[in-house]
Amino acid sequence: MSAYLKRREKIYEWMIQEEIALVMIEDREGYRNSSLRWLCGQPGDAVLFLAASKQSLLVPWDINIGMLYAEADALVPYAEFGRQPVRALKGAIEHLKISKGSRVEIPGTTPYPRFLQYVEEVQDFDIICREEGVWTELEKSRAVKDADEINIYRKLAAQTDEMIKLVEKNVQDGTLKSEMDIALFIESESRKLGCDGTGIDIIAAGPSRSFGIHAVPPYTAEAFGGNGFSILDFGLKYAGYTTDVTLTFARDPISKAQEKMLSLVEKAYKLAISMVKGGAYAKDIAIAVDTYFARSKKVMPHGLGHGIGLDGHEAPWFWSRASNEWVLEPGMIIAIEPALYDPVHGGCRLENNILITDKGAEILTDARIIRL
Amino acid sequence: MSAYLKRREKIYEWMIQEEIALVMIEDREGYRNSSLRWLCGQPGDAVLFLAASKQSLLVPWDINIGMLYAEADALVPYAEFGRQPVRALKGAIEHLKISKGSRVEIPGTTPYPRFLQYVEEVQDFDIICREEGVWTELEKSRAVKDADEINIYRKLAAQTDEMIKLVEKNVQDGTLKSEMDIALFIESESRKLGCDGTGIDIIAAGPSRSFGIHAVPPYTAEAFGGNGFSILDFGLKYAGYTTDVTLTFARDPISKAQEKMLSLVEKAYKLAISMVKGGAYAKDIAIAVDTYFARSKKVMPHGLGHGIGLDGHEAPWFWSRASNEWVLEPGMIIAIEPALYDPVHGGCRLENNILITDKGAEILTDARIIRL
Repeated sequence: MSAYLKRREKIYEWMIQEEIALVMIEDREGYRNSSLRWLCGQPGDAVLFLAASKQSLLVPWDINIGMLYAEADALVPYAEFGRQPVRALKGAIEHLKISKGSRVEIPGTTPYPRFLQYVEEVQDFDIICREEGVWTELEKSRAVKDADEINIYRKLAAQTDEMIKLVEKNVQDGTLKSEMDIALFIESESRKLGCDGTGIDIIAAGPSRSFGIHAVPPYTAEAFGGNGFSILDFGLKYAGYTTDVTLTFARDPISKAQEKMLSLVEKAYKLAISMVKGGAYAKDIAIAVDTYFARSKKVMPHGLGHGIGLDGHEAPWFWSRASNEWVLEPGMIIAIEPALYDPVHGGCRLENNILITDKGAEILTDARIIRL
Repeated sequence: MSAYLKRREKIYEWMIQEEIALVMIEDREGYRNSSLRWLCGQPGDAVLFLAASKQSLLVPWDINIGMLYAEADALVPYAEFGRQPVRALKGAIEHLKISKGSRVEIPGTTPYPRFLQYVEEVQDFDIICREEGVWTELEKSRAVKDADEINIYRKLAAQTDEMIKLVEKNVQDGTLKSEMDIALFIESESRKLGCDGTGIDIIAAGPSRSFGIHAVPPYTAEAFGGNGFSILDFGLKYAGYTTDVTLTFARDPISKAQEKMLSLVEKAYKLAISMVKGGAYAKDIAIAVDTYFARSKKVMPHGLGHGIGLDGHEAPWFWSRASNEWVLEPGMIIAIEPALYDPVHGGCRLENNILITDKGAEILTDARIIRL
């Protein structure tokens, strides 16, 4: 049984239990949803229908890409439905012989006005649109990686480490001088290393721009690695999966305030890592780091971390807010990224990728604060 | 008056007329909305509130980026609202002194489950979520570029043409050999030309991959420019705005079937251009091209074109479906991209950017089918 079919089988079982006859999953510009790829291999731009009768129907925008990549029981080009999701849903109901009166779950991200349109145009069915439905089920399932995915990540992590070494060497010896030098070096080397390229926007921000969480634009022709802090955030991609690491380069003279920032971020990172293991609440780890920073009157303006996979940011989420109920489980692959930013002193972020195992945590990548 | 304020003033007037007391515009991962940048300059990751009292409040994720780029009457860091949109809305209602019972318009893209949450948690206000509201108003306003935007496009188009020339020369003389060579050349040269980089994903697909509308992955280490069709789709970016052009490189031997495809695409392009002018219905032009292809039993699997601006794809839309009511107006900047794809013969697409003027249409860029 293929990995895709195994995943669909799990969703079919869930559908039978929940008495959902049909599930609709859509990926399009503005509404990306990597669960589509996770379930059938189609890289995107398609609508996938799963019926509780254990049949799948894929409606790809590009039928040639669909035939090459996707695994589904049937494929119909989106053009046959005028590239309109409501028409595709009606077509799928017919094709998959869904009984009238059945429960049909549409994307939990469906805009309210569009939801009204579904309800109006697909009248003989019970249209369900909710956050805590198949979307939560998919999010939870995707958060725990299977053996194939873990293998991909072992390879990707080794390539990411190789890239870190190459970049460090070339920044140290002055070969890579500008933000652009580094970004294009990574784009090029990633493909030479056998990756599909980069999985997240490369952020290369020299001392004058490192104060931003995500520098705007992500990289420019400006100098990288000068006095103060330079941030490099990148991820390598293979088969749709991406790593996500951040290095901070610190070049003397480093002020006392900057030394304090570096030390706080490194200690916050160690604190977080010491807490990462199966059974731990992600919220507790996030709160511990926020509290640690607060003791020095510092605030981190973003979450502590997130899962990685087909999306650069996915579950589990490391938010400190009370509603965060994510519990770490073996098989989860996460990014932990404590950071501090200051409009004058610049920014400092340290981010690595970690696999949660039965025994605790395995740090997959070797990003560091690098002194120049 | 700044361009941003002028744009906000227009929306304020609309709000007063529609009796909307508060409008909420959100840009975040998974829910990008460039109207935020268009209205205040903040590049993204923020919530913008506009009150009919002509006051604006920006709630940026990264306050440092907000202070550097944004123009708003007040800024409050998103962290103060726990980075939660519903809490930000409540805060804005208080800050902007919105009267109880007023009409408050939230994003038309708000998912149905989230809409229910707004209605539940913000009870003393009339929460409005619709497609034909401020979203349509913003889409329409953004479709017609102002003088500043047209100036940006004249510069960007010249740079895009310079890039086309450079790429053509370097492909012709064999300097750029692989998909990756070309993509990285464009990334690098774009910044040397003074752009912020590229505005859309570069697609460089050699003969073995050009059959896909959007090749997966967008570029690889494979050869570009060999026998048959190679497609290059790129756009240059400045101040958030992007061009969007596509060249097809055709190298002999070209089969009879391939010659037919090239000829059909070139003629479809000329047909479309001949119809592009103020007052024309975008739908009519799209239907004319679909009909032209159909006479040779060919089908184009995507729309004929779209507007360009802060988004690579934006209004007006060149769909052939009956519901498409877009009419071309002077000031609109569009991309026209007729194309044909075949799993055996490969793909061929020709795309240029055009400014609609009082007199007709001005073709801004010079992408072509290039014989190698």
